[in-house]
Amino acid sequence: MADSSGYMWLWDSFSEAEAHIHAVEKLVFVGQSQYQRVEIADLASYGRCLILDGEIQSHQADEFIYHEALVQPALALCPDPRRVLLIGGGEGATLREVLRHPTVEEAVMVELDPVMLEAAREYLPTFHAGAFDDPRTRIVCEDGRAYLERPGEPFDAIYLDITNPRIDSPSQLLFTREFYQTARKRLARGGWLAIQGDSCRFTGLETFPVVIRTLREVFPKVHPSIICIPSYGSDWGYAIAGDGHGADPLAVTAAEIDRRLEERGVRGLRFYDGMTHERIFRLPKHIRAAIEKEERVNTDADPIRERFPGRW
Amino acid sequence: MADSSGYMWLWDSFSEAEAHIHAVEKLVFVGQSQYQRVEIADLASYGRCLILDGEIQSHQADEFIYHEALVQPALALCPDPRRVLLIGGGEGATLREVLRHPTVEEAVMVELDPVMLEAAREYLPTFHAGAFDDPRTRIVCEDGRAYLERPGEPFDAIYLDITNPRIDSPSQLLFTREFYQTARKRLARGGWLAIQGDSCRFTGLETFPVVIRTLREVFPKVHPSIICIPSYGSDWGYAIAGDGHGADPLAVTAAEIDRRLEERGVRGLRFYDGMTHERIFRLPKHIRAAIEKEERVNTDADPIRERFPGRW
Amino acid sequence: MADSSGYMWLWDSFSEAEAHIHAVEKLVFVGQSQYQRVEIADLASYGRCLILDGEIQSHQADEFIYHEALVQPALALCPDPRRVLLIGGGEGATLREVLRHPTVEEAVMVELDPVMLEAAREYLPTFHAGAFDDPRTRIVCEDGRAYLERPGEPFDAIYLDITNPRIDSPSQLLFTREFYQTARKRLARGGWLAIQGDSCRFTGLETFPVVIRTLREVFPKVHPSIICIPSYGSDWGYAIAGDGHGADPLAVTAAEIDRRLEERGVRGLRFYDGMTHERIFRLPKHIRAAIEKEERVNTDADPIRERFPGRW
Amino acid sequence: MADSSGYMWLWDSFSEAEAHIHAVEKLVFVGQSQYQRVEIADLASYGRCLILDGEIQSHQADEFIYHEALVQPALALCPDPRRVLLIGGGEGATLREVLRHPTVEEAVMVELDPVMLEAAREYLPTFHAGAFDDPRTRIVCEDGRAYLERPGEPFDAIYLDITNPRIDSPSQLLFTREFYQTARKRLARGGWLAIQGDSCRFTGLETFPVVIRTLREVFPKVHPSIICIPSYGSDWGYAIAGDGHGADPLAVTAAEIDRRLEERGVRGLRFYDGMTHERIFRLPKHIRAAIEKEERVNTDADPIRERFPGRW
Repeated sequence: MADSSGYMWLWDSFSEAEAHIHAVEKLVFVGQSQYQRVEIADLASYGRCLILDGEIQSHQADEFIYHEALVQPALALCPDPRRVLLIGGGEGATLREVLRHPTVEEAVMVELDPVMLEAAREYLPTFHAGAFDDPRTRIVCEDGRAYLERPGEPFDAIYLDITNPRIDSPSQLLFTREFYQTARKRLARGGWLAIQGDSCRFTGLETFPVVIRTLREVFPKVHPSIICIPSYGSDWGYAIAGDGHGADPLAVTAAEIDRRLEERGVRGLRFYDGMTHERIFRLPKHIRAAIEKEERVNTDADPIRERFPGRW
Repeated sequence: MADSSGYMWLWDSFSEAEAHIHAVEKLVFVGQSQYQRVEIADLASYGRCLILDGEIQSHQADEFIYHEALVQPALALCPDPRRVLLIGGGEGATLREVLRHPTVEEAVMVELDPVMLEAAREYLPTFHAGAFDDPRTRIVCEDGRAYLERPGEPFDAIYLDITNPRIDSPSQLLFTREFYQTARKRLARGGWLAIQGDSCRFTGLETFPVVIRTLREVFPKVHPSIICIPSYGSDWGYAIAGDGHGADPLAVTAAEIDRRLEERGVRGLRFYDGMTHERIFRLPKHIRAAIEKEERVNTDADPIRERFPGRW
Repeated sequence: MADSSGYMWLWDSFSEAEAHIHAVEKLVFVGQSQYQRVEIADLASYGRCLILDGEIQSHQADEFIYHEALVQPALALCPDPRRVLLIGGGEGATLREVLRHPTVEEAVMVELDPVMLEAAREYLPTFHAGAFDDPRTRIVCEDGRAYLERPGEPFDAIYLDITNPRIDSPSQLLFTREFYQTARKRLARGGWLAIQGDSCRFTGLETFPVVIRTLREVFPKVHPSIICIPSYGSDWGYAIAGDGHGADPLAVTAAEIDRRLEERGVRGLRFYDGMTHERIFRLPKHIRAAIEKEERVNTDADPIRERFPGRW
Repeated sequence: MADSSGYMWLWDSFSEAEAHIHAVEKLVFVGQSQYQRVEIADLASYGRCLILDGEIQSHQADEFIYHEALVQPALALCPDPRRVLLIGGGEGATLREVLRHPTVEEAVMVELDPVMLEAAREYLPTFHAGAFDDPRTRIVCEDGRAYLERPGEPFDAIYLDITNPRIDSPSQLLFTREFYQTARKRLARGGWLAIQGDSCRFTGLETFPVVIRTLREVFPKVHPSIICIPSYGSDWGYAIAGDGHGADPLAVTAAEIDRRLEERGVRGLRFYDGMTHERIFRLPKHIRAAIEKEERVNTDADPIRERFPGRW
């Protein structure tokens, strides 16, 4: 009885009063792991996408923006990144971005869910692009916090590519002060922790300032960045945090970034280069203001988990 | 990023300007057969449902209305139904309804698609309720028209439980005068052809009158009936057509229907009984008027296949 | 930025998990009275519609079904209806239906809201069709319950054409046992109270059985009827209730109804006639079952006002 | 019958497969002028908004981003802006931004539609903030192109704040090479033409590159900028174009912009300042690439007017 086009719609609800919706062309995979429901669908608007417990993770058409924005700045700022840790990022695209840097000798990806990994390997080939089989890759199926809490060799960069801190989300405790303290101990001198920090929509700008405020409790230097992700329908927040021995991203010029990428032999970037670098760390005034006035620190005892009303 | 409730919606479009939409709780099965895409989902509103090529077929919560309305009148009117043919009806619920009648000795179900049958057997247990394994059941994987065109023993009732005649739908040629002529030859004296005849919505009342008009070209007696199917969001049309040797459904009283069902030992009906019987064959005036003024006969040469505008 | 077609949609939510949606072609009127927000819009699917406090009331394309089903049975059953009372029905279409009967000498319409009446007069001409100016019409701007509680001449028929009993709806107290007792006192011998009784959707069949049960506390004879209203996307419930001196609608034949309408000179009906009459009072088995098992009586002290979950 | 929340939704369709939707709280104004349909509504998500012929124009909550991004860079780059021309911008917010600069002695606003202006004055007070009554304001009700084609005194800045160039939009001919040539002739030496340039969504990045390419046919210097507008659900494109005697926005530092705004006494900016200035003119790599490869020049003879498919 349904129309031949658009009989099923993915509903990316920003609030009870606002949503970004996408016609589904085809359901590709439906699975239930021990940890979550894993679905993969083809959208008319943005191609193949991954959905975890009903949360859209990333879209084929513009995941390059999301993943380059998460990965590239920290590695470009790092003079000689060799050991990299990834927590989450089951699609394999964060790993793909890390492996673009020929200096990287080992990329450890800690992903809890083997069902997620198998589905990605089979159905998300443009996301991982073979990264799971790179000889520098080591995949560990384990809880990321448990992994980090054990002592071990330091990393030049640690990436947290995890779902947002919502009610019932297991990632609640991966956005807290305590967890950031744990992560800091595993960073090499001058290394960076890089995270995604939720939406920067006008009607959703609650989590990102708290994340930045919390990072600043733990790290001497915290640099937020934001970029619009079309398939998310909004600006998205990121941050890199360091011990003060790394370079200041606002002081590194476009020319210097372009030179480093060229010298290091990084190939295939579509979003990130020197001018993009200059853009993303320069936040608009109203977002800087929202960050500056934020007072809430996110802790294990009282983590962000609420759904915000999303009304102006 | 999606809200925890309702991240995926099934969109039952009535036209470009009207739709009935349902929150999907869970996708249960996704498959692609040689003939069609088969999907099974759980809806918050109506439970499990079957979707073929993006067309919602039936819903767990109220399929009893759809299937009893299709099956029961013809069998109740038939004094001693023994051999029954079903074309389509892959969920197994039409078969289930036929088998409620202890007089039935053989129910032949002709369903083209083995993938559909396997999915129904596994994921639609409340629909078939074991009917596939009844010793009276015989399942034939074949095109229904091809099956009927071969000579064979006559049937007391023939059911067409097929998708609507839309563009690109293979069922286009199962609503034509020529096909009804073929079906008539396989009916026993006094037997009934029973069909579903598409929506009777105000903004979708184009197909049903044509179906009735076409049946009347072939059969001496044609009795339309309609009933509201909640999950379809509208009245739905049916018809039984016979050679003139069967009873007139408008003349058979509620008491007589109740007596027959009781005597025959038909159990488990939730929708159909004597009073329901009296209701469904009495059409509202405006629908009778739409039928009476219809002049189009549906033929193999020019079958209904258009999508109607759905504007009043 | 919106598409040229369908930039605004009316969302008739059945529950959090189900809705019937309509593209709005044009907003015609926006007003705020002392009592409610009054809006009138043109829908692509069903033409002009009235919306009160965000609740769609009726649609140009199929309001004839709603209003004939509400009005005609009680007047057809009444041998000689002369005085009729209407509470609500601001569009004027209930009044229009009453005035079709040449026997009617006086039709008193009690409508609280003069803004509603003015908007209807100006923007809903096909609904009232001049009924406001009929010399038999008397319009009283007053609360319907207050009007009925005062003593006065009895009526041959009393119609309650009011919004559904929801949270914050003023019509909550027009569905209770106490109000029905008040109405009964104002009925002439053999007269009928006729009401609309909310949706009979599978996922919304909570109010109608309570309404019928409550009427049965007060009236010796209560006859429910239902019919599918396409623009509502569902079956709709009605009832007539009387003192036992009126005819039994199930015993009056189609031929008798047609004869009465003809003799009385009732013209212009599109939905109601003898066969329609026979249909609407014969309820499907599952709806009769839901009514029979209902135990809740609606009272002033604890009126129905909840929103039901709408999940099967 | 509708739910109490969200019975009406504004549907900002990006394509047939993607939309950004908003719950409407209240309709505030409905009018039809000689030129267009003018509607004003309150959205739960972004407050009051203006809708012209079904196209959402701007939202109370974040129009400050849209309007500051359009207006402020050109005025900040201009050493001493005195005479400013605005074409379109009926809400009055573009005018409000211009008048923040105390150097401005005359702001001429050319707006075709007096109904639009009256509605804005009455119902959009936070948008115009009294700007219509500023003694420096002169409002001309006329077609913008006709106005510019007549000779007259040159302007230090000309703003085109007009609807997107769609099918049937009168603004089609305000995005062409010929119109830009006309505008150039009315600019003072070192002055800027500043325009909005449509969406920069991934699935909607067709118009903006053509606009930039077309400006480059006419102006020696063209500087695109983009910023995410939350209520539009996407990055939005702008450009300033000049004769080569103005400053290069990429060479003017944040500190210099902040100093000028301070010295000039510009007050009340929430979005624009020095760092924001540095952000918006630095485009991400993939958008620069899309601009560079564009070859189409928009002309009066063959203006952009198509709706693009919006599929990746």
